[in-house]
Amino acid sequence: MADPRSTPRVVIIGGGFAGLACARSLARARVDITIIDRRNHHVFQPLLYQVATAMLSPADISAPIRRIVRHQRNTSVVLAEVRNIDPERRVVATDEAEIEYDILVLAAGARPAYFGNDEWEHHAPGLKSIEDALEIRRDFLIAFERAENASDPAERQRELTFVIVGAGPTGVELAGAMIEIAREVVPRDFRNIDTRSARIMLIEAGERVLPGFPDKNSAQAERDLGRMGVELRLESRVTDIDDRGVRIGEERIDAANVIWAAGVQPSSLTACLDVPLDADGCVQVEPDLSIPGHPEIFAVGDLARVIDSKTSQPVPAMAPGAMQMGSHVARIIKSEASGSPTRPSFRYVDKGTLATIGRGRAVATVWGRSFAGWPAWLLWALVHVRYLIGFRNRFMVMLEWAWAFVTYKRGARLITGEEQASASHGDR
Amino acid sequence: MADPRSTPRVVIIGGGFAGLACARSLARARVDITIIDRRNHHVFQPLLYQVATAMLSPADISAPIRRIVRHQRNTSVVLAEVRNIDPERRVVATDEAEIEYDILVLAAGARPAYFGNDEWEHHAPGLKSIEDALEIRRDFLIAFERAENASDPAERQRELTFVIVGAGPTGVELAGAMIEIAREVVPRDFRNIDTRSARIMLIEAGERVLPGFPDKNSAQAERDLGRMGVELRLESRVTDIDDRGVRIGEERIDAANVIWAAGVQPSSLTACLDVPLDADGCVQVEPDLSIPGHPEIFAVGDLARVIDSKTSQPVPAMAPGAMQMGSHVARIIKSEASGSPTRPSFRYVDKGTLATIGRGRAVATVWGRSFAGWPAWLLWALVHVRYLIGFRNRFMVMLEWAWAFVTYKRGARLITGEEQASASHGDR
Repeated sequence: MADPRSTPRVVIIGGGFAGLACARSLARARVDITIIDRRNHHVFQPLLYQVATAMLSPADISAPIRRIVRHQRNTSVVLAEVRNIDPERRVVATDEAEIEYDILVLAAGARPAYFGNDEWEHHAPGLKSIEDALEIRRDFLIAFERAENASDPAERQRELTFVIVGAGPTGVELAGAMIEIAREVVPRDFRNIDTRSARIMLIEAGERVLPGFPDKNSAQAERDLGRMGVELRLESRVTDIDDRGVRIGEERIDAANVIWAAGVQPSSLTACLDVPLDADGCVQVEPDLSIPGHPEIFAVGDLARVIDSKTSQPVPAMAPGAMQMGSHVARIIKSEASGSPTRPSFRYVDKGTLATIGRGRAVATVWGRSFAGWPAWLLWALVHVRYLIGFRNRFMVMLEWAWAFVTYKRGARLITGEEQASASHGDR
Repeated sequence: MADPRSTPRVVIIGGGFAGLACARSLARARVDITIIDRRNHHVFQPLLYQVATAMLSPADISAPIRRIVRHQRNTSVVLAEVRNIDPERRVVATDEAEIEYDILVLAAGARPAYFGNDEWEHHAPGLKSIEDALEIRRDFLIAFERAENASDPAERQRELTFVIVGAGPTGVELAGAMIEIAREVVPRDFRNIDTRSARIMLIEAGERVLPGFPDKNSAQAERDLGRMGVELRLESRVTDIDDRGVRIGEERIDAANVIWAAGVQPSSLTACLDVPLDADGCVQVEPDLSIPGHPEIFAVGDLARVIDSKTSQPVPAMAPGAMQMGSHVARIIKSEASGSPTRPSFRYVDKGTLATIGRGRAVATVWGRSFAGWPAWLLWALVHVRYLIGFRNRFMVMLEWAWAFVTYKRGARLITGEEQASASHGDR
């Protein structure tokens, strides 16, 4: 690949878990690293749902990418949108400039997939960015306001019906947080409505919630959701979404708020690579995570499809897998920069699965042992705080959790954004 | 006014300092209160500039209006935009419904005034709402990113030139915060630019900064700003603003970022009232704060022009005056609800003036004594934390300040919003 006598130029597209893990593992390597991202911040995606449900502020789970790598003198950060990749010329074209590489790490992540119904996106936003989270938060909080103002009972119920499509960790966590808010946080704030009558529906096409988790976890999560009042619909398919509600099979449900947590598709940048993609559009990588025919290009994170050699299952599209892939590529780059031609295969280390459902309710499987309730909830909290980037964020998130735990309040109940700012007169 | 045998209906338009002070002072009064606001949250405007400069998160200085008055059983909150007021029928028309009143408190505040050059608004946003603050934050942080990417030195300098129009407290505080960030917070994060070369220009038409403050405070603030590196232009008028920069008198300055802190005009709702407005469009109220010919309508806060009987000066358009006006009207409403027809005149109690310029730099005048430096800075911090609504906000703001103080970091360096979300491929 790169001429061993010069310093190889490593370009990393995407500052998510995979890209950042790669860059940080290369901190002391003799390479020139450029991280390209169209946002200035890394987002801790596992807690995005808490921004969407008014628990945390965006700044609590984000950090400027520049700040994270500021002490790595071998790394620069470019805020730009990648338009194209030219594997022949070894150039990445952004909206700002062309950037040459010797080694390319594609870590551009995924976005919501609507299975051919792209028009649903407008009615059912997904949850992949801070902007998505703030949009969902706004819609969720405004629904109560509209219900409070509504005089027609049917309209009121429609405003208080929330449908979450997809019962993976994000869907389960959103549903749990939303029903807690409706039943415990806001009831006394409203005069005309009983917010406890809000319906939170969780729709799943498969036969159980948390499909990637052990059966025992799924069963426990279903029990917890049911006790909390979430309406769970398993083996149900959403057949239509419009601005009045959803259709599930033949049943029509009037709902003002629909959230999409059902599936993702890889960044469309994968199409630039001229390699075979699998049915979901993911890049089928070689065992070393490079792409077929291009040992100098690696694909990592949510856009790569890696089959774990031990379990013959795909590596789950979650943060631990992404970070392990990023670090694996960094190891290869380092060893090649120091002249070693060996390229070990990627091995996924499954550290377990964790999901939270509500106050003191969570499910976990660690080293093959499944457990639930407070122990799982505490482990979930510890692990998530541990992996947040930066002391400030860890501290702030723990504080917000402690505050919410003691007071049953949510610190970030703000409706912001353009929908409200249709200013015909002064700000109040 | 209201039939004394029934419960008077008090409608308050605006949940800012004036409206909220009025509602809270009526907590135990036998009246039915409706607060109408088009946002769901009260904003602590004196700290908005810290959201704009990445120190604080929006949730730190805001609180849901519902949450603030949740224990006042006599108060409901309506999230709606007021379209019209009909003083004859005693009805407020919103985009949602018509709301009848016996007593109306107009506290709809002010918005930036561009002195007839409304096209400037697009290039030079004002700072009145959370949305404004996030827009200014985004533009400010993106400017450094663009400069880092720019290859043309002139373009780079243009990106690093920030012009703030108006040297009242907001302009002074913005300028001080911005130069601290450019010189102390971000320099090591960038590779291609020296952020310390950023120009922060503060343009003031009058002959001194902080026009409402005693001369001694102004002189000290000018010295502090100069030492920090802010370029101060006094007796300078902005004659044009476009997307490339500003014109000051005959001089053209290339600047990518212009912020408007030069003046405000009252909410256009004042036009519904059919009463004489002064040159700035403010309502000239009676000594009791009611409007001429309508004892049942009060105007308070930034949209009212009140001449202080002691000093013959207008009451400053700042939080303390607004809160005092709101409480004054509440006292009148309470005494009339219990049958007393006396209507005392409003008396402004000047508790002093305070403005901060930077780390350990501030000016204050309290009980006629002016001082500066650390004592003023500490007083400023204490007073602002004291008046923030809610324990959580007070605690979080103190923490963020302590964190920034010790680490020279800013906790909320996030670029968010639509400008970046032109998603042509997946989230990274």
